[in-house]
Amino acid sequence: MGEASVRPIQILRVEGEQAPAHPAEDLLVEEEPLEIRLGFGPAGQREQKRISVTMRTPGHDLELALGFLIGEGIVRYPGEVTHLDHCRNVRQPEEVGNVVKVELADGILPEIDHLQRNFYMTSSCGVCGKGSIEAISQVSCPVLPVGAPVWTPAMVHGLPDRARGTQTIFRHTGGIHAATLCRSDGEILYSREDVGRHNAVDKVVGARWLSPSPPDPDALLLVSGRAGFELVQKAIVAGIALMAAVGAPSSLAVDLAREHNLTLLGFVRNQRFNVYSGAERLAL
Amino acid sequence: MGEASVRPIQILRVEGEQAPAHPAEDLLVEEEPLEIRLGFGPAGQREQKRISVTMRTPGHDLELALGFLIGEGIVRYPGEVTHLDHCRNVRQPEEVGNVVKVELADGILPEIDHLQRNFYMTSSCGVCGKGSIEAISQVSCPVLPVGAPVWTPAMVHGLPDRARGTQTIFRHTGGIHAATLCRSDGEILYSREDVGRHNAVDKVVGARWLSPSPPDPDALLLVSGRAGFELVQKAIVAGIALMAAVGAPSSLAVDLAREHNLTLLGFVRNQRFNVYSGAERLAL
Repeated sequence: MGEASVRPIQILRVEGEQAPAHPAEDLLVEEEPLEIRLGFGPAGQREQKRISVTMRTPGHDLELALGFLIGEGIVRYPGEVTHLDHCRNVRQPEEVGNVVKVELADGILPEIDHLQRNFYMTSSCGVCGKGSIEAISQVSCPVLPVGAPVWTPAMVHGLPDRARGTQTIFRHTGGIHAATLCRSDGEILYSREDVGRHNAVDKVVGARWLSPSPPDPDALLLVSGRAGFELVQKAIVAGIALMAAVGAPSSLAVDLAREHNLTLLGFVRNQRFNVYSGAERLAL
Repeated sequence: MGEASVRPIQILRVEGEQAPAHPAEDLLVEEEPLEIRLGFGPAGQREQKRISVTMRTPGHDLELALGFLIGEGIVRYPGEVTHLDHCRNVRQPEEVGNVVKVELADGILPEIDHLQRNFYMTSSCGVCGKGSIEAISQVSCPVLPVGAPVWTPAMVHGLPDRARGTQTIFRHTGGIHAATLCRSDGEILYSREDVGRHNAVDKVVGARWLSPSPPDPDALLLVSGRAGFELVQKAIVAGIALMAAVGAPSSLAVDLAREHNLTLLGFVRNQRFNVYSGAERLAL
């Protein structure tokens, strides 16, 4: 992360109307495709499938691949993944570093059939790999357990500044989304940046899965922009009980949060925020 | 658009640390899935395929479906589409108003095979329906013709304010992306809002295609957030020669813009902007 994910470029800078445009150097956030390949099946009959290509900011690719598989319900328990690494066996030079291979344990047959019938477009918090409108909620979302009021308003107000301190790419380029998982005592567990908001969330979910510590049930996921349906779904599937967005939630995001008992906060900035669901986890 | 795309909701509002949280009404931007079904093939052997599901803000659905097909290279000329409407033949109540049917002319066989091999995740400006890393640039992008210097800095500086005046959902909810196509004389041709940034662009591209007037070669597409690879690709495929973003472009977006001669401006705000490519279309 950081230097590796930005690239200097020559541009023209225009200020006001009178001064001439002047050449300048700008820093761009890197954006490259990442392909995820899944290996599965019994020994001797292993299959391999390309299951996704996403535009992402390079870095934390293994976490991203893992977080994506968790969010899609393909992987549920750590023992199901036997191998997770960049693929060295690629044909094109541009694929180097841009393909991640995930091997599933012998007995695990991923339910990817319903994901393969069609291809999909998505919104910035789109539906990924869902077969039709009915299939949108096919990923099984648990209803989260009732929580205790451990988060105070002061702790919530302080989150955006604390999170920004960890975001090196944004400081350099201004063009990136971030997701940050914070403990209720203020400690930042994981902070990830990406051109794609849901990639940043996938990276955090993957990082949390890869950690040897048990997950903190009171941890809160802060996202830099809007809270759309898909981000809320990703949090719930990953068992994260609190989510806060600097921007607005969508209607479907609030519906899902309320149905599954996620605490959802929006417009968290300037010492204010809105509580859309799950107020019982806040000490108000 | 407008009232139909927002929904009132009861929330708790938290301000500072001392005052108690108080109940309030908030307006949410609507987010619902849209399914696109494509009909094609010779008479008597017509096939029907669900080709995509996207989370979108309801409204301008036909433009969205058409713009998506244009961006994917499935549709190139107006005569190729014989029917474009919401599907009345749906099985589930939640599908009503959320399925668009597009019928292609008899002789048109869409090249959707390479789009069907896999399923995909995308970033907020992700790759939609591309089969692998090599397939990312499979949609044929024309190199845009060299343009004349018709846009002055003053015209560019004024764009964000002019565009915001047309954005009714943002005013109500604060949670939405916008795409606006402007003529060089300042007239706004189309302005569309959506929870998904690239849906907003698809809607504008679709609206432009549906218009009886010939497209203006000097029109500029303003987008509310970042300029990622996919948005730049959509502009180029649609033949739009100038694109301006309120936020930052990504590295791949700049590469593509330079390769295909798109004028790409970034950080268009506060009387300043950066020129990343195609400066010859600006009167600097």
